[in-house]
This record gives sequence, C-alpha cells and structure tokens, in this order.
Amino acid sequence: MPVRRRPIITLTTDYGLEDPYVAEVKAKILSLVPDAQIVDITHMIPSFDERRGAFILLTATRHFPRGTVHVCIVDPKVGTDRRGIIVSTRLGHTFVGPDTGLMWPAANASGIIGIYEIDGSRLPPRTSETFHGRDVFAYVAAKLAMGVRPSRLGRRVDCMARVEFFGPKISNGWLNAELMHIDKFGNLITNISKESLTMLGPTSGKYEVELLGHRYILPLCKTYGDVPPGSMLIVFGGTGFLEIAVNMGSAAEATGARVGERIRIRREQASPC
Amino acid sequence: MPVRRRPIITLTTDYGLEDPYVAEVKAKILSLVPDAQIVDITHMIPSFDERRGAFILLTATRHFPRGTVHVCIVDPKVGTDRRGIIVSTRLGHTFVGPDTGLMWPAANASGIIGIYEIDGSRLPPRTSETFHGRDVFAYVAAKLAMGVRPSRLGRRVDCMARVEFFGPKISNGWLNAELMHIDKFGNLITNISKESLTMLGPTSGKYEVELLGHRYILPLCKTYGDVPPGSMLIVFGGTGFLEIAVNMGSAAEATGARVGERIRIRREQASPC
Amino acid sequence: MPVRRRPIITLTTDYGLEDPYVAEVKAKILSLVPDAQIVDITHMIPSFDERRGAFILLTATRHFPRGTVHVCIVDPKVGTDRRGIIVSTRLGHTFVGPDTGLMWPAANASGIIGIYEIDGSRLPPRTSETFHGRDVFAYVAAKLAMGVRPSRLGRRVDCMARVEFFGPKISNGWLNAELMHIDKFGNLITNISKESLTMLGPTSGKYEVELLGHRYILPLCKTYGDVPPGSMLIVFGGTGFLEIAVNMGSAAEATGARVGERIRIRREQASPC
Repeated sequence: MPVRRRPIITLTTDYGLEDPYVAEVKAKILSLVPDAQIVDITHMIPSFDERRGAFILLTATRHFPRGTVHVCIVDPKVGTDRRGIIVSTRLGHTFVGPDTGLMWPAANASGIIGIYEIDGSRLPPRTSETFHGRDVFAYVAAKLAMGVRPSRLGRRVDCMARVEFFGPKISNGWLNAELMHIDKFGNLITNISKESLTMLGPTSGKYEVELLGHRYILPLCKTYGDVPPGSMLIVFGGTGFLEIAVNMGSAAEATGARVGERIRIRREQASPC
Repeated sequence: MPVRRRPIITLTTDYGLEDPYVAEVKAKILSLVPDAQIVDITHMIPSFDERRGAFILLTATRHFPRGTVHVCIVDPKVGTDRRGIIVSTRLGHTFVGPDTGLMWPAANASGIIGIYEIDGSRLPPRTSETFHGRDVFAYVAAKLAMGVRPSRLGRRVDCMARVEFFGPKISNGWLNAELMHIDKFGNLITNISKESLTMLGPTSGKYEVELLGHRYILPLCKTYGDVPPGSMLIVFGGTGFLEIAVNMGSAAEATGARVGERIRIRREQASPC
Repeated sequence: MPVRRRPIITLTTDYGLEDPYVAEVKAKILSLVPDAQIVDITHMIPSFDERRGAFILLTATRHFPRGTVHVCIVDPKVGTDRRGIIVSTRLGHTFVGPDTGLMWPAANASGIIGIYEIDGSRLPPRTSETFHGRDVFAYVAAKLAMGVRPSRLGRRVDCMARVEFFGPKISNGWLNAELMHIDKFGNLITNISKESLTMLGPTSGKYEVELLGHRYILPLCKTYGDVPPGSMLIVFGGTGFLEIAVNMGSAAEATGARVGERIRIRREQASPC
C-alpha cells in the first residue's frame, strides 16, 4: 500500500476541547495511518457556525504544503441527507467534510479541480449516524492520506454548497465588507484582502472606516507598533486580511463590534475649507 | 532496544491548557521515545473530578488501536500512599496512572488481564512528590511504549480502585441512570448504552424521560436533524451513550440540568381514555 | 540536507486556541521539516504578557531533551525595529523569538553560549510585518531543526533583552519574592526555588507567609495530601518553585491573590511567653 511519509492531516471543527470527540477522530485516523502528522487548526469554532469555520479555513489552510488533507467539520445536519464530499484542488490540497459550504472559500481559493460525493457503500458499516466526523470523514481522510484516489471513495459531481461572504464590493465610493472574526487580541478582521483594497486606489495613507454607525479616520499601517499604544489603526494582519486594531489594546472592546457586522471603508476625504 | 514504530500514547488529565504541566509530561515521554505519537484526549477534566475523567476515558479510549498506552491522571492524592498502577487489557490497551478508580470503567470495558502496582524503586529517583504525572506516569508510559513489560515496572496485584457509575438499572418499569457529561453542544450524556436501553424492550418510538422533576416525552432518533430545529430528542451520540439533545440548540440550557443528576426513562405510556 | 530524526520544536505563544495563528506557524514548520515533533507548551499566555511567558518557559523548557528548539513568542512590538534573536545554550537547547526578554530566564538557566541577531536578508522576502511568528521565527526554527547553524541565520551579538523577576532576596529576615503564576488548581506559584529557600535555613517545619497584608503560618509539605482537605500549605510543586496551595481546594480563591503580587516569607517565629 503506497503510504506517503508522514502525511499531514489538519482538523478544523466546532467540537471544543473538553469532550472526547477530537480524540476519537484522531484515533480513527491513527488506526489507519499511524504515521500521520495531525495538526489541529482549531476546534473552537462556535457551535454550528459554518461561516466562521469557513473563514478560519480560508486563512489557515493555504499555508500548508501540497498533499495536505484538511478535515473540515461544522455539521449541524449530521446523519441527514446532506452529502459528504471530497474536494481536490490545483494547489494540491484535499478537503473532506460535510457539504455545508464550510470548505468552499478555502477550496475555491486553492483552485477546485474535482468534487466527489462520498459513497457510503464504500465505507465500513456505521453503527451511529451522529458522528460522521469520526465514522466517515476521519476514515476518508486517512484513506486519502494513504494515497487512495477520491474517485475510489465516491463519484464525481459538478457542484458543492457554498458559504459566501458579503463583498467586498464598491458602492458610492465606499468599499463594503463584513467583519469575519475577532481574534484573541481583539483585532476586528474583515474579508478585505490587499487586492480588494486596491479598488480604492493606492493602498496607503488614511482611511475612513464606518462601523456600527461610527466613523473612524484610521491610518493604514505596516504593523501595530506604527501608532502609539492605545491608538487605533488598520493593518493587514496575520490572516492576510485587513483588520481594525488597537496597538497593545483591543479594538473589539474599543468599538463594541461583533462578528457579522457590516463595515465600509473609503479613502479619507479632503475636509471642506 | 525494541522500540515499536511510532507508539501511540494518549493523555487524559485535569491539568488544563494554561500551565506548563502537559508540556512537561510530553517532554519526559519524548526524552525516552522521540518517535511517540502523543494524542491529547483532553486536559479539561474539572479539577479532581475522577468520575468525569472516568467517563471520558471510557468513551474515548476504545477507538484507539491495539498497543496504545493511555496515561490517565486525575490525582488529588498525588505523593501520598495511594498506589500507581499499570493495567493491561485483552483488547491490547495499557492504562497507566494513579489507582484512584479513574481508569476502571475504560479498562474494565477493554477486558482487564493484568494489574501491576508500580514499584518506585525501579524508577529514577524523584526530587518532587507533587507531579507524578511527569515523574512517574510519563516515565512508565514511555517505558511501556518502548516495549518494556509491566512486570518489569511493578508487581502483579489482584485489584484496583473503581469509580462506578449509577445504574443503569430497572426499577418499577423505569430505567434509572446518571447524567455523566454535558458536551460543548449542551447535549446531556447519560451512561445508558444501546444494550442497556434494550432492558425497556425494542429501542424505537417515544420515551418518557424524567429529569429534575420534569417529564419529557421524547422520540428516540437516529440523529439530531430528525426533529425540527429547537426540538428535543433522545439519541445515541458520539460517545455511544444515550443523550438528551436539542436539534441546533442546547439541552443543558433548555433543562437546566447539571452533571451528576439522576435521570430515569421508560417507554411512553398509553394515555388513559 | 542533514535532517536529524524527528527534531522537537516547542511553541509558547499568546496566540490562543481560537484563531488560525498557531496552525499557520505549524504549517510553516512542517513545510520545511515534515517530520518535526511539534509540542505546544501553551498558547494561553495572557496577551502581551512577557513576564508570564518568561516564567512558563523557565519551568517547562528544561524538561526537554538536548537538541530541542523552543519558539517563544509574545511580541507586542512585532514588525518594529525590535530584533529577532536565536540563543543557544550549554544544555543543548536553542531559543528563537523576538528579543523582548521573554526567553531570558529560561535561556539563562540553560547556560547561554551564543546570541545571534536574525538577519532578515537571509530569510525569504516577507509580504507582512504583523506575523513574524510565522514568517520569521517558524522559518528560523525549522532551519535550526534541520541542522543549520545559528551563524548562518544571523550575526553574533553580545547581549539580549531581559525579563527579570523580583527577588528572591533576603531583607530583615524575610525572603521577598513575587507571585509568578496561578495554575488551573488555584495554586499560587512564586519564584522561590528550593535553593532560594535555603537562605532561610534548613527547609522544613513551618513558615510565616505574608501576602496582601495577611500573615499565614503554613507547613512546608512534601505534597498536597500532607494536610487535610481544605487546609493551606506551602510545597514545591510541579514547576519546581514554592507554591501556596490548599489541599483539594484553591489558594487563589482562599486568598484573593493575583499574579504580580509581592510576597514575603520567613521561618515561623517563636511566640513570646
């Protein structure tokens, strides 16, 4: 059996860290691929929050090397007739999980070249329908990591479900976008990439940011320490996306913003004389 | 020295994730077995809660392959005269930890074939009596993973301490059991296995569940999505045990139940005409 | 390329467990060293708290074997002109991270033999200045784990920044020290080592501990269970440092103490007749 050397399998779930669920997924994988290099992306996705999971997957998975298998599970409809899928990409990544749209942004950014609906009849019989993370997706991920082709585990299909984010799009000179995630430091992370921001012209200088009805004039900085401690700024952070931040502080506390808010941004306007 | 290839060692503790303790256990293991595949089951057992740890171990460990060594530490009496033990089982698992009963349910389910009291005189000298997780059990687990026989690390004994759960047992047509764990999704997990539920006859249809003085008529479903969002159900979940759940919601919030409650369940009674 | 077998790389950060940051660091390491044995020491250092990180590193890193590379990141000044450094030690450990003093206590205890300022011109070009944990330190750690010498990644320098703890020092018969950390069990962990406590004479018997204006007469015990449940004691805990503890309880709750408090301790005084 052609086992690659220490295949990397990542796990992204809403299972949390107090329950036995993550360990059961790993047990299943290691039973089949004892050498697997399993990496937890996070298990702290808010329960059932596919949009949050989709954003975390988009930012984290692209840093892994070719050949990585990503198990992606936020699965409120486990055991119903929602499909399980495998998605292979041009950059050499493979995504496995329920077809709830969760993996769409990451897979799409990686260049989708094949989508396969997992065929339950090719898997071991299940005694439970509540834990496909362990009984279906861990098994499939292990098989893929062992070199089994997706076409051996399911049939090729044409489409998959999609979580889509709002914008970024230009309207009346404003770039409209969404607040996707608030990180541990209180940084407010949007879905505005560097490329998106160029829709407003050269990316430098000051910007006007509207959030929760307030307008902030903020400098676009290279890093947090470019402004004094306690000052607010915008910066492309570790996710690759634009974030509203406070140097040595929490923009979440400063603004009261929550994930899911719409935000808009434009270049600073010249003041009337 | 006969080192097996990438032996799997699992860790289940109440050490939490903020302190250096888990890393020190891993450092000790890796110093002896650099190739170990170490899997965290959980470190979030409530402090000193042996019953909770026992239940997590029971549900998680059985999914690991033969040859796995399970380090199990909830150890309020560390450094006193409580024994440290090694338990080997028919299914090829080995449990290591303080003899506080914590590992009893999991080891028993795996078929105990030998219990050994760890002999401190066969271990390196200790400078501390407060951290046997690192100084005793990590060392012993590493040695076992290297292929050392339990009889080389201690002497065979006849018994071990036991954490026992309440029930499940039939009384007056009710199956009495215990609420063992509430998971991240708010599912109320009992100690009723599929086999136990057959004490009430064929496992299907509706059941009457009594919890905290309230009675609920609940359908036994295959999965959460078999009822509408917000509706309550009973289902055999990822642990293999019966749980009271709310589809897309939290049964813990809906009922106010806490771990340790007694529950009882019977088949739905025909209404009087 | 001379890759050692399964090099150990530890990670200590304030990144938390909900964001994609830790996984991105691991992705970078595994892209270069697929066989790395990556160990999370903790990612729960309070944001920007270099002193806390320094103490955790001091206690955890010394248990790892020779050859371990420790990535140490609490980095409020990321992307500014603060240096990145590599520190190699007599005990065979290598520390990598921002030169903010964080790694000083651990590196110093391990016997510093070389300090190197990382030379950005020897690294791949960066597109971001906000995430040196991934773009600089993970890369450097992976190279070091592959056997690249520090001198190939930077130039030797004479000094590094230092986080220093308060005391322990004797004044008027009291040993003055600092409360460094409160662990998950509520143990109050000081920076008093066994060696430090000998400044007060033989280490046994009872001690007077002053904390937040209160004085406690506490026995120095070998382990928690040497006093009845609910009783307070002092003990050298799993960190190797003296801690104020309550058997089966929380000294943090019992005293209201917080990290950073000064404490002082002396031998119990004979009562006046």
